[in-house]
Amino acid sequence: MALTKKPVNGMRDVLPSEMKLRDYLMGIIKETYAKYGFVNIETPIVEHIENLTSRQGGDNEKLIFKILKRGEKLKLDGEMSEGDLVDTGLRYDLTLPLARYYSNNSASLPAPFRALQIGSVFRAERPQKGRYRQFTQCDIDILGDESNLAEIELILATTDALKKIAPDNAFTVRINDRRVLRGMMEFANLDMNRADAVLITLDKMDKIGAEKVANELEEMGFAAENIQRYMAFFDTAEVDPMERLTKLEQVAGADAGEFSDALRNLKTIIAAVTASGRIHLEFDPTLVRGMGYYTGTIFEVSMEGFAGSVAGGGRYDRMIGKFTGKDTPACGFSIGFERIIGILTDQKFVPLSNGGKKAILFEKGISADVLGNILEKAQNERNQGKTVLVAKMNKNKKFQKEQLNAEGFLEFEEYYKEGLK
Amino acid sequence: MALTKKPVNGMRDVLPSEMKLRDYLMGIIKETYAKYGFVNIETPIVEHIENLTSRQGGDNEKLIFKILKRGEKLKLDGEMSEGDLVDTGLRYDLTLPLARYYSNNSASLPAPFRALQIGSVFRAERPQKGRYRQFTQCDIDILGDESNLAEIELILATTDALKKIAPDNAFTVRINDRRVLRGMMEFANLDMNRADAVLITLDKMDKIGAEKVANELEEMGFAAENIQRYMAFFDTAEVDPMERLTKLEQVAGADAGEFSDALRNLKTIIAAVTASGRIHLEFDPTLVRGMGYYTGTIFEVSMEGFAGSVAGGGRYDRMIGKFTGKDTPACGFSIGFERIIGILTDQKFVPLSNGGKKAILFEKGISADVLGNILEKAQNERNQGKTVLVAKMNKNKKFQKEQLNAEGFLEFEEYYKEGLK
Repeated sequence: MALTKKPVNGMRDVLPSEMKLRDYLMGIIKETYAKYGFVNIETPIVEHIENLTSRQGGDNEKLIFKILKRGEKLKLDGEMSEGDLVDTGLRYDLTLPLARYYSNNSASLPAPFRALQIGSVFRAERPQKGRYRQFTQCDIDILGDESNLAEIELILATTDALKKIAPDNAFTVRINDRRVLRGMMEFANLDMNRADAVLITLDKMDKIGAEKVANELEEMGFAAENIQRYMAFFDTAEVDPMERLTKLEQVAGADAGEFSDALRNLKTIIAAVTASGRIHLEFDPTLVRGMGYYTGTIFEVSMEGFAGSVAGGGRYDRMIGKFTGKDTPACGFSIGFERIIGILTDQKFVPLSNGGKKAILFEKGISADVLGNILEKAQNERNQGKTVLVAKMNKNKKFQKEQLNAEGFLEFEEYYKEGLK
Repeated sequence: MALTKKPVNGMRDVLPSEMKLRDYLMGIIKETYAKYGFVNIETPIVEHIENLTSRQGGDNEKLIFKILKRGEKLKLDGEMSEGDLVDTGLRYDLTLPLARYYSNNSASLPAPFRALQIGSVFRAERPQKGRYRQFTQCDIDILGDESNLAEIELILATTDALKKIAPDNAFTVRINDRRVLRGMMEFANLDMNRADAVLITLDKMDKIGAEKVANELEEMGFAAENIQRYMAFFDTAEVDPMERLTKLEQVAGADAGEFSDALRNLKTIIAAVTASGRIHLEFDPTLVRGMGYYTGTIFEVSMEGFAGSVAGGGRYDRMIGKFTGKDTPACGFSIGFERIIGILTDQKFVPLSNGGKKAILFEKGISADVLGNILEKAQNERNQGKTVLVAKMNKNKKFQKEQLNAEGFLEFEEYYKEGLK
């Protein structure tokens, strides 16, 4: 029986042309982040099942590829549940493995630690266009820094990388804070047991507008008075982020504890980022972001002309404590690697090839001496930095040269049995 | 309950210092192979279980990490075997996925196709020093070229990369051919049903010597006369590869079919490689190499001062046919990535850092304006190619600077509440 040619369901083979784009993108990302002192690390693709199912991953935990126990550990008799069969699984993101990595190695790492991680993650999602079950994530994180220098540097580094990747596209960084989201609800006396449902509604603000958000809250049974108090936070046409933050401060009152702290903190971040970069920053009190592990600042980057976000992240000060028993400040940014590949592909972007590419074609049957000379010449040119392909001439030489042209080989040298032509 | 800090059994976290070495090595490999026209590709880490267990992988197939079926496909009632529970697994090498990739995509690929693949593979081996259950492989392959130009270019490219990686270490390429191994046994009238056992003994020649090899063959029950005929092939002190090949031709006689073809082919390869490179090539009729899928030439590279091989490969003309029903010539070389990392680590090799690295330290409590200026300055220097770390000054500044020194930051700038010092 013949073996199976197609990749497994939902995964894919990356062809050379796309790989070139991926290598190009990875190169820019690594180079840019290195300039900010981020260092590359690697965590295993396989992770303990108890870590993967510890509710740090939200809905992604439903999509885990689980690995069968091996040898004596695998008992196939008697009543069985999935739990009896597996002890590890494939990671669904890079954040949880990073928290484990830091917990395990912090004694050997600088403090604070600036980490860059690029790697494959796996989610058993329903296969659809542009969504694969194995895909690349690209994360930077600053661990062990409780100050907002972490947020500031993450935003500067990420926007710097995005500018290099797509210099002609304008992009917007929206920023908010989980404590602002909570503070607004508490101020409006909304039932905090239903906070998640409120946030799901709030998240729709930019799509359905304030009126419909208020309607939905009413349908959920919240008191009109409370809804009014809540909606007051969003009742402004002001776009300047500092002015908007001031507006929230006014609504919330002078001393709203953590809520006020968060608003002040956002002002500092926005002032510092705006002073040092040419970045369009927005304060967006309706920005929610799904992951439950965020504890403070959250941010998202969108690119002009493309729906959805190209990068996002936030502060998660309580994940490392799940491993060590002691909370450690942590803040991260994830660049939507596959999303950007998709955008660049749509734009028919082609990375510049470095250096000349030459093909030496020879007719079948040339002497070993001539072949030796060809190979020696090719070696010398490669040593000088050139890409040199040595290949047998096909019967249809015209077609062969057209193909090579398409691969970037523009210079040819041809050898025949009777000598060089 | 606290989550698990250690990586899963047999896998590991890669710390920044080693990651730097890995990135350096990967950079040289990619750059060198690109000059020979090899293009980077990627195959999924997860592969069909029927492909992984098709006897292309020899003993590695016993070490597969198997992935549990999901959703409705997973039935946990009634009698069960492992086969009922899994439909995919983690790849144990890059060659089988490459053969599948080529079968699936050959219409979109150049002919012949020169592929470079660097990626993680997984084997559930007993954990031991330097052997991990996830490790990196680095393969180049030429598919669709039946001529020995494939072997010649693979050897030139690989030795070129090795020279750049370790310019001070001498290395040796040993070459043989599966058809020579078979031809010698057939010539000596050894029972071909026991060929595998004979080759296991032959493989020990360099350790135990000719006399003990002959003894072992005697113990296996082969006739003295046949053993004598067999051992005649190895009865020479000659080291020049051309002379050794001539010696085998003399023993085998003028027209030994495939055996003679293989010997002639080896002469051509050795002549071409020797003419064009400064490479130490040996013909070694006792070189066996484990994988059952090899059909022709096989080669192995060793480095002076280090046991074992640092690269190896060969021709496998019949694997792609298992997918397509039609055999396609294929020849590959695998660089022992982890082995070389181990050697470079033993040599305490440190890759040169590119460009200056500077740390700007500031005292806690400096004004937002001063921080803004610091960040702007850092951005400008990063734009000019420098690595600039902006960090809060620790209480123990002396220790902090020592740590930063160790990470390669040699230039410092310090800001205090009362101004620059």
